[in-house]
Amino acid sequence: MTTTSEPVTTPTATEAAAPQTEAPRPTSGGRVDVPALQQMLLGRWPEERSEARRMVAEHPELWKQEGITKEEHREIALAQMKQMVPYGQVLRAFPERLGGRGQAGANLVGFEELVAADPSLQIKAGVQWGLFGSAILHLGTEEQQDRLLPGAMDLSVPGAFAMTETGHGSDVASIGTTATYDPDTEEFVLNTPFRGAWKQYLGNAAKHGVAATVFAQLITNGVDHGVHCFYVPIRDPQTMEFLPGVGGEDDGQKGGLNGIDNGKLHFTDVRVPRADLLARYGQVAADGTYTSSIDSPGRRFFTMLGALVQGRVSLDGAAITAAKIGLAIATKYADQRRQFSPATGADELTLLDYSTHRRRLFPRIAEAYAMHFAHDELLDLFDAVFSGREDTPAMREDLETTAAALKATSTWYSLDTLQECREACGGAGFLSENRFTGLRADLDVYATFEGDNHVLLQLAAKRLVGDYGKKMAHAAKSPAGVAGIVAGQAKDALLHRLPLKRLGQTVSDGGAARTAGRLLDADVQRELIAGRFEGMVAATATGMRPALKADSIRAQEIFDDNQVSLIGSAAAWAELVRWDAFTKAIGTVSHAGTRKVLTLLRDIYGLTTIERHLDWHLTNGRLSAGRARAVTTTVDRLLKELRPHVLDVIDAWGFTQGHLRAPIADGSEKARQDEARAYYRELRASGTAPISEKELRKQQAKTA
Amino acid sequence: MTTTSEPVTTPTATEAAAPQTEAPRPTSGGRVDVPALQQMLLGRWPEERSEARRMVAEHPELWKQEGITKEEHREIALAQMKQMVPYGQVLRAFPERLGGRGQAGANLVGFEELVAADPSLQIKAGVQWGLFGSAILHLGTEEQQDRLLPGAMDLSVPGAFAMTETGHGSDVASIGTTATYDPDTEEFVLNTPFRGAWKQYLGNAAKHGVAATVFAQLITNGVDHGVHCFYVPIRDPQTMEFLPGVGGEDDGQKGGLNGIDNGKLHFTDVRVPRADLLARYGQVAADGTYTSSIDSPGRRFFTMLGALVQGRVSLDGAAITAAKIGLAIATKYADQRRQFSPATGADELTLLDYSTHRRRLFPRIAEAYAMHFAHDELLDLFDAVFSGREDTPAMREDLETTAAALKATSTWYSLDTLQECREACGGAGFLSENRFTGLRADLDVYATFEGDNHVLLQLAAKRLVGDYGKKMAHAAKSPAGVAGIVAGQAKDALLHRLPLKRLGQTVSDGGAARTAGRLLDADVQRELIAGRFEGMVAATATGMRPALKADSIRAQEIFDDNQVSLIGSAAAWAELVRWDAFTKAIGTVSHAGTRKVLTLLRDIYGLTTIERHLDWHLTNGRLSAGRARAVTTTVDRLLKELRPHVLDVIDAWGFTQGHLRAPIADGSEKARQDEARAYYRELRASGTAPISEKELRKQQAKTA
Repeated sequence: MTTTSEPVTTPTATEAAAPQTEAPRPTSGGRVDVPALQQMLLGRWPEERSEARRMVAEHPELWKQEGITKEEHREIALAQMKQMVPYGQVLRAFPERLGGRGQAGANLVGFEELVAADPSLQIKAGVQWGLFGSAILHLGTEEQQDRLLPGAMDLSVPGAFAMTETGHGSDVASIGTTATYDPDTEEFVLNTPFRGAWKQYLGNAAKHGVAATVFAQLITNGVDHGVHCFYVPIRDPQTMEFLPGVGGEDDGQKGGLNGIDNGKLHFTDVRVPRADLLARYGQVAADGTYTSSIDSPGRRFFTMLGALVQGRVSLDGAAITAAKIGLAIATKYADQRRQFSPATGADELTLLDYSTHRRRLFPRIAEAYAMHFAHDELLDLFDAVFSGREDTPAMREDLETTAAALKATSTWYSLDTLQECREACGGAGFLSENRFTGLRADLDVYATFEGDNHVLLQLAAKRLVGDYGKKMAHAAKSPAGVAGIVAGQAKDALLHRLPLKRLGQTVSDGGAARTAGRLLDADVQRELIAGRFEGMVAATATGMRPALKADSIRAQEIFDDNQVSLIGSAAAWAELVRWDAFTKAIGTVSHAGTRKVLTLLRDIYGLTTIERHLDWHLTNGRLSAGRARAVTTTVDRLLKELRPHVLDVIDAWGFTQGHLRAPIADGSEKARQDEARAYYRELRASGTAPISEKELRKQQAKTA
Repeated sequence: MTTTSEPVTTPTATEAAAPQTEAPRPTSGGRVDVPALQQMLLGRWPEERSEARRMVAEHPELWKQEGITKEEHREIALAQMKQMVPYGQVLRAFPERLGGRGQAGANLVGFEELVAADPSLQIKAGVQWGLFGSAILHLGTEEQQDRLLPGAMDLSVPGAFAMTETGHGSDVASIGTTATYDPDTEEFVLNTPFRGAWKQYLGNAAKHGVAATVFAQLITNGVDHGVHCFYVPIRDPQTMEFLPGVGGEDDGQKGGLNGIDNGKLHFTDVRVPRADLLARYGQVAADGTYTSSIDSPGRRFFTMLGALVQGRVSLDGAAITAAKIGLAIATKYADQRRQFSPATGADELTLLDYSTHRRRLFPRIAEAYAMHFAHDELLDLFDAVFSGREDTPAMREDLETTAAALKATSTWYSLDTLQECREACGGAGFLSENRFTGLRADLDVYATFEGDNHVLLQLAAKRLVGDYGKKMAHAAKSPAGVAGIVAGQAKDALLHRLPLKRLGQTVSDGGAARTAGRLLDADVQRELIAGRFEGMVAATATGMRPALKADSIRAQEIFDDNQVSLIGSAAAWAELVRWDAFTKAIGTVSHAGTRKVLTLLRDIYGLTTIERHLDWHLTNGRLSAGRARAVTTTVDRLLKELRPHVLDVIDAWGFTQGHLRAPIADGSEKARQDEARAYYRELRASGTAPISEKELRKQQAKTA
């Protein structure tokens, strides 16, 4: 709810409400240093990111074409990939000895930017180099890498990543495909025992793939050692016919990403040489003896699946980039587009002069910044682990938890943002030429692939709740322990016991101005956001504790009763991670104007995050009713303050028309508005303008 | 948040949590009478609705084809429309003397069902008969109807409805196209004075249209009488070339609805005979004298636009139908699909056994019911007005307010629901064959056409706030007035003054069971839902009051500050309208089982509506923190209770596979699950099953 209790004193607010002939931009002082912020946003691999972004802008042949058939789109995507091989950018992650550069983080940076060209190109490239190639790289031995990677890298062997089955997606451990070792021939015999075990949704499977990395239950000497990965040729590269024993189906038309030939595969007694079990974490000797450097089957399984985290990290980045493209287009349009005049003869208002329109776009822009900085930290973490620099189990676990929580929340955010942007542009937003609908359709599946978002949040939350449980168990051993835990999680252990008092929000609270001031205090924002996460984790842990002593059926019931709050905990954690990353990034900025506007954006992010969960803060005694109302009025005021800076913060993302490519964002809307206003001005000046019937009646009423 | 404090006592809850081999359906007592409910849901025109639904199911040539080009799709849609003309169903609204049946409501019923065939077919039919034809019907004289309607009706004259311009969509009064009367030739001269005045987004304009109903500023004798509608031929029906002075452009590919050839039109000195001004509400004599039966230019404008309400009514119905199709598919799949086993050897759980999955689908099913019953009432209201039976200004205003509020909220609901359903089906949900993505893409534009949803909510809210203002002004004249107003709006005038006490939710509140019981009291639900609407309207009215005494610029500022809450008021009203309609419908049901389950659904709708706005109820003192928590635990319990009935309430919608057409909802998932389980059962029985490494290690540990 909006109220008028907040005095409108900023010059920007009156500027925004008054009719404008030009978009309001502050002319001096307190402005963003756009080039410097742009540089900062390029992150840790600025040259690699700039290079990838330039490649997109300068190569129209890489841009998505709308309205073509899936057959055309698939061939175009493959040709685009072939075109990219010589650039070497897509091969950065591979070993230097094979022509790569051994750069994990910089590779992802380049990959993420491809979404601006065509998400199909990005994901088809991801299938080839990020999944099929990565499986060989991360699950294969050095000998296997040397033998199998070159074809994957130079695209002479397009490949599918055959993990998911019709019957099992999220529960990979339960896939049905079997690879049974035959010591007589030193081969694995690959089989699909029933229809539900068909491999499904595999990119490159319907048409282009000539090989696949196939996940199957490895059975040798009567023991099932669990899921392992096999390198399996599937088509004759000359005829492109399936090899004997291999079959499949085209998945046909999809909701988006139709440049990728997703399909199904199945296997009947397909013989795979012993050497083609990707053997980094598990090997079978000629006689069928199984060995592994990882003793626990469970840990071995999760280690092998660990390579998947790369996809999640890059989807987080791509989803944020896609949302920024949408926001840049919608905001540029809303800055120029006018509709309805506040008074006869006055200029029509721009869309950004409306509080509802600011409410629709600005908080999402602030969130894009928060997501950006958190993603930069995630990339750092990924690079530290995957470069081998800090590849410890604890770091891997941190990486997986963070990637899961961020990917789940950013892909949803991106869909929501693209939809809001599309609607905010009305009918123009529905035309494919303005990008929103295509991006949204393509990004849709990001919410369920590389880990279903709900399952990913569960994964992250289990770790967070587990950590809480461990700390509590540890604390129980020492008297000072409990206080120590709480102090470690928040800055003030006493805070949450007396929250209303601490935040100065007793019923007889001070004036509205003081209340708003406290909400802009970074510590207050953090205490609320962190407090919610901690409160939710604690409540979930408490709710689930009885499961420890229950049988498995009852435990499942208890787990189920807490599942909604479990998932909510991980999402709350993602909000905290982003708020922290944003705040940390601001700490590195010295330019006063940039720092001021970034702080404004962070406050918008912080307070809209708190506002979204007001019910929690109210039911858990963290905010009084009066303070809760102040959150909303403060947000509305901050959104007005952002108005004159909003084009600067959009420009700092560094997109050119080569990335945006939307006719409504190219300035033609302003040209049309100017032409229309000039027409009416000249008409009035000419003296030939008709008088409106309304006006005539007013005049007649006066003379009567 | 979910807690375990509620004892799980219903047989259904334990059934749902325990592993199932068959989907749980209650075998006796307390069940829905599905055929009777199905009949009830057919509403007031059961035969017409059944006929339309049968036509969709029995004519595969009307079903949407995915993955075709827009050129193919456009021709298919036109051919489908031609095929439908002889059925007469699409002509029901037209006068009997011209071959129609003069049935307003029954016509919409048939039109709505077309969405199940192909939304492009529905909307292209809507353009032809609902907009182009309706403009002639509602804005033309009897002579004009006789002369112009037959071609529109039999499709020999495909037509465009040329109202929106590039520069003006929501603000129709400000369109730039002019029609200046020339008494010398007794013609109007139609002109597009600047680029922003091009007609835009018009169905049938890019390719098939040979005429258009064009909205333009009518200028005669130097006076602009505002927006009027003209019948204008635009293409030579033989060559399909534009006529002299007419130009246009194809809007190209869109985010959906590509069976419709949307495009732009512009006019340069196009001469329209005086007889082709659609003259029901305004006429120009040979000498240029303007006359109208409606004296006020403002009221005249809104009367002419009033015909548009028909589109909004039918979009409300179509959006609900599309959401139901999505929910039926996703629920049938979730009832069969299994993933993750709670214990070694136990069957995997179905998706509906997970609380998160129930949370995703069930409240939306309940909301579909609420929307359905409110839509039935809206159809009644529409029929009363458009049949002429009760065509009063007050009824028209009620109709417009209700249609605006319901259309805005149901189209958003539909998009949200289709997206949730698509994600709830994972990768399978992204395949076009399973319907979600296509329906969602097509329905996307329903949120911004026939009135942008934000603008429609504003429209509705202004009326609601205005009514409140009038009542307050009236009440101020009599001492008993104020109490009277409040009593008229809610059932108990005292309620909102002492809400916590009345709802029995003081801090020392009774047990959880009693609290939950109170929330299931229909009066309590209504008091909360109605109270929120009334509170928001009152707050908005109070916030906007200063605008009455301000100049227009300041008034706009004040209006802007209250815009978010204004829009929220209308959405809150729509929730109340739906709750009331649902409750009223339950009152007509005598079958105990049906009544019980419908009440369960109504409670789910009521409590999730309250839960969605917990922050408001908390900040406004309507719910205590404890009661607020009880809302969530009660909802979770109700969702478990719905589990064994959910297929029944889905089945009552009356869809067959001819409407659903999704392979994941045709039972093949269950067949695959059964096959897989049979495979493992036989393998275990055969004694040749491999032992898992995990199991082997356990056995070895025991023997060691």
